[in-house]
Amino acid sequence: MSEKKETNKNKNSELRQDIVTGDWVVISTARAKRPDEFAKKDHEETDDNIDDCLFCDPVKSGQEKDTLIYNTSDGDWSLRVFPNKYPAFSRPAGGIIKHKEEGPYFWMESIGYHEVVVTRDHKKHIALLDKYRVAEILDAYQDRYIDLMNKRSVNFIDVFHNHGKAAGASISHPHSQLMAIPVISPYVRGELEGAESYHKMNKHCVYCAMLEWELEHKKRIVFESDNFVVICPFASRANFEMWVLPKKHKPYFERMSVDEKVNCGEALNAALNKLFKGLNNPDYNFYIHTSPCDGKDYPHYHWHIEILPKLNVWAGFEVSTGIEIITIEPEEAADFLRSQ
Amino acid sequence: MSEKKETNKNKNSELRQDIVTGDWVVISTARAKRPDEFAKKDHEETDDNIDDCLFCDPVKSGQEKDTLIYNTSDGDWSLRVFPNKYPAFSRPAGGIIKHKEEGPYFWMESIGYHEVVVTRDHKKHIALLDKYRVAEILDAYQDRYIDLMNKRSVNFIDVFHNHGKAAGASISHPHSQLMAIPVISPYVRGELEGAESYHKMNKHCVYCAMLEWELEHKKRIVFESDNFVVICPFASRANFEMWVLPKKHKPYFERMSVDEKVNCGEALNAALNKLFKGLNNPDYNFYIHTSPCDGKDYPHYHWHIEILPKLNVWAGFEVSTGIEIITIEPEEAADFLRSQ
Repeated sequence: MSEKKETNKNKNSELRQDIVTGDWVVISTARAKRPDEFAKKDHEETDDNIDDCLFCDPVKSGQEKDTLIYNTSDGDWSLRVFPNKYPAFSRPAGGIIKHKEEGPYFWMESIGYHEVVVTRDHKKHIALLDKYRVAEILDAYQDRYIDLMNKRSVNFIDVFHNHGKAAGASISHPHSQLMAIPVISPYVRGELEGAESYHKMNKHCVYCAMLEWELEHKKRIVFESDNFVVICPFASRANFEMWVLPKKHKPYFERMSVDEKVNCGEALNAALNKLFKGLNNPDYNFYIHTSPCDGKDYPHYHWHIEILPKLNVWAGFEVSTGIEIITIEPEEAADFLRSQ
Repeated sequence: MSEKKETNKNKNSELRQDIVTGDWVVISTARAKRPDEFAKKDHEETDDNIDDCLFCDPVKSGQEKDTLIYNTSDGDWSLRVFPNKYPAFSRPAGGIIKHKEEGPYFWMESIGYHEVVVTRDHKKHIALLDKYRVAEILDAYQDRYIDLMNKRSVNFIDVFHNHGKAAGASISHPHSQLMAIPVISPYVRGELEGAESYHKMNKHCVYCAMLEWELEHKKRIVFESDNFVVICPFASRANFEMWVLPKKHKPYFERMSVDEKVNCGEALNAALNKLFKGLNNPDYNFYIHTSPCDGKDYPHYHWHIEILPKLNVWAGFEVSTGIEIITIEPEEAADFLRSQ
């Protein structure tokens, strides 16, 4: 490993292009550390206390009625979904969404649905669950997705999970969120456009093209199951970034079968577990990138989950240009994670 | 103020569209705090020690020879520019930039220039300098910009400044950075495209349209001088975001006159000083968004400086969608900053 690092340290840094969006990342290994040096030194918990945890006790939480509850065979709850108490998107009050123009500007009411998906065990985050419990979480995402996707004013649903303070989790009890919103995610819009134009040129899905190459060369594969594969993407935006992709071309997350959910749960669980073990429980976000639900078809998109570890701060260059600088090559990151 | 807050708390959150890029932000005041509650409780300094500061002593720093030095009238240095010791973009070694295709992927050597601009006083960051010293910094940016813009393989120059740990400053001694790179910033590309298409529709610069409205209605003006204005933009991506814009239509930062530099220095200084006083020295990034230097003309772009305070973490929703959620209305932020 140390020999390999020497080589990397002397390497010029490189610019890699994301073939979907056309955006760039810089891989600058001159300041690189060994993979295990990225590990968190001391795990900083979020502030809240398990005894006062709002998500442990449905009654104490004072939330509105649950939207969805999954129970275990002995009748105890294992997973709950309820409206976020401080929604960034509020439920439509009926009638028309207010729009306003003021001079050159345009705004509209931020109408939609903002829900929280909570699993039972305060201490067991997704990396530590078994694959069937993770499949249950995906099942809840899908269940809520399908319910929300046809609501008036919903054109896009973002499903995401914050783990740790640096990733924006204000409550440490494991939970995910769904935001069903009237506008399409600019990042997903960029990927849709990229997939569309790649398909026009090549008559082929851009994600499928990547997967074929990755599965043949195995340089950036972290985990593989029957229907899913976990890779460190060629143009990773963060150190140790991973994508969980269905092997077959699938534009729509919400159409996953039961078998696929177990398979996807296994892959997501494996990816997060490797991150947990290799880097001592680092903070991260993961989220689903899937086709919008605006009534149009997106046959050339390929849904997937992106896992973005929060190991460094995006500084001036990143926030001004949208070009991220990473310090570990995705090939080395994949090698390290695979071995966990 | 408390009455106003009550009103905001009961307000539905809103989606605002950035009229340049078409992107969205959410203004969610339900969880809002009073402006002064955003203030940093205890200022966390970066780790380095003034006695060991690499940027205080040109000799101790062991940097390569300075690229540029400004001296005071008594012959002591007041500002230095030198190559970054750990460049994300390395100087071209001569010959052709290496490109590589591998399967569907494309990469190129990360060739360019990465320089550091250091002012003399370890403790005096830009908010605390006088306007002539800030003009000197702008002068150094411009000087280096003009030297680098015509170099082979340079198509875009990013000038940025990180203040504080959360903004990515690893050394607390005040310093800015220039990166002269072969690719165009995706964020600036988005703004160029937006400005271009607005001009096609309206025969008018989109930034000039904003400025006319802002100067007439004065809802989001923080500071105004002869040639420059500081506003909290309508669709702010961060709480207390500010833009420093030339009042007249100017596509190219590097063409600023001496008078304009003093004026711009005054405006930048005022903006940062208001942030410093109002929010107890918060961390922030600022950076220049100007036309690329790729040999093409960009007559419809309007250069400006963006100041992005780091008061909250971008969590799963922001990193997955590119839609930022802020909790203070730009009008209220401007009101608060203006009064500092």
